[in-house]
Order: sequence, then C-alpha cells, then structure tokens
Amino acid sequence: MAHYNKGANAERELIHSLHAQGFAVLRVAGSGVSPLPSPDVVALKHGKILAFECKAWKGKYLAIPVETFNDEVNWAETAGADFFVAWKVPHKGWLFVSAKHFHNAGKNFMISLDDARKHSANLLVIEGLQSTIQQ
Amino acid sequence: MAHYNKGANAERELIHSLHAQGFAVLRVAGSGVSPLPSPDVVALKHGKILAFECKAWKGKYLAIPVETFNDEVNWAETAGADFFVAWKVPHKGWLFVSAKHFHNAGKNFMISLDDARKHSANLLVIEGLQSTIQQ
Repeated sequence: MAHYNKGANAERELIHSLHAQGFAVLRVAGSGVSPLPSPDVVALKHGKILAFECKAWKGKYLAIPVETFNDEVNWAETAGADFFVAWKVPHKGWLFVSAKHFHNAGKNFMISLDDARKHSANLLVIEGLQSTIQQ
Repeated sequence: MAHYNKGANAERELIHSLHAQGFAVLRVAGSGVSPLPSPDVVALKHGKILAFECKAWKGKYLAIPVETFNDEVNWAETAGADFFVAWKVPHKGWLFVSAKHFHNAGKNFMISLDDARKHSANLLVIEGLQSTIQQ
C-alpha cells in the first residue's frame, strides 16, 4: 500500500505540474477497469499531446514489462502523442525518458539510472515552453 | 447502482466503438479521484482529439450541471479537442451534441431530446471517416 501511495503521489505531482503549465490533463482510469492499454497520464494543449507512464522508483534500474511498454508506445503512436516514461527518483527529482532509450531485456524494457539521467529531457522542453535544455 | 451500471455500460460501448475505428481511447479516472475536471472519455488519432461527456438517460430533457459543463468545455478548448455530449438513449441509440446546442437554464445546461435529435452529429462524421451525414 505504501508503494501504491508513493506512485499515486508521484502521479498527482506530475499532473499538478502539467496543469500549472496550462495543460489540460487526464489521469487515466486504472488498467483493471479499462480494457484498453494506455499511458497513466495524458496532457494536452492546443493539439500538442504528451503521454506519460509514471513510475516512482528508487533503484539503479527501471524495468517495465514488455507488453505494457509496447502497448503504451503503440497507443501514443496512434494518438499522435509524444511518449515519455516519467521516473520519479525519491528525494532526487524527475527524469523524462523517451522509449527509444530503453532496451529490450526479454521480459522487460529496461534503463539504468545513469542512462536515464544522461537521456532525460527537461519537462519545460517537453512542454514546448523552452527550446533548449538549461544547463 | 443500476443507474451507475447503465452509465458505465454506455461508456464502455462508446469506448469500444471509437477503438474499433482506430482511435487511441482513454477512460478518465473518476472525478472523486482526480482533482481536475475533465470529460469522461477522450479519443485521439494522429493529433485529432475528441472529448466526450457520456450520459445514458431516458427522458425528454438532458441536464448537465453548469459547473461540470463549463469545466469540460474549457478543458476541451485548452486541449484543442472537439467536445461532444454523447447521449445514449436506452434502446434507441446515440446522439452526439456540441456544447453550442445546449442552453443555460440556471443550475444546468439543458437540451431537449427533440433538439438533440435535430442537432446530433453522426459519429462517423465526428471521427473524420465520412465527410457528410448519411440520410
């Protein structure tokens, strides 16, 4: 339950951040309820579509089951959305990583924390509020 | 509970219909869970965004609370979405009505079944699959 709440809190934090930047934001109904695989959070602004798989995870590697990962990537492609895995590293902050930076490790798509740090996009850049990444 | 299930079934029916037409579809998490007012169902395809408030209702008038209605219209405007009230008339079928056809009756935005029938858009037209309404 603690783990669930941590994830839910991270999701809420991401939603409020996107909302504060003027996006229309959706939290998607749980996969147990909806039959259609899709990302956790979707943010929209004047036709720009961002889709996020949201993970709160303290560890050296992040793993996402292959089927989930592929479903979400396909969903985003159909929608015309930019897809990111939003990795909240507890007490550190957020990393936003495109699907292309994950590697298929059989059962899961994976990325190391080091690689995620290297490839993470700035949320302000993702949101189109900033054209280059601040150093 | 029977009423809730009727609404949930209608929502599921709409979701499957949109999914069958190749849309990436979202069922939005309940308003009790999410702090941000938004439509019930959102369907996306290659950047086209459709947002629906879904109602299963057997009666001569459909009423939607003013605050809910305004929140959803604003949400759709921010998102860049086309917004429709999807009215399932039990044992009759679906009506898809734009916000502009509702009138503000004080506590609610309302439309009569007759007006809804007159102004209803064809789902295939909404989806961009057909350019004119079939007679």
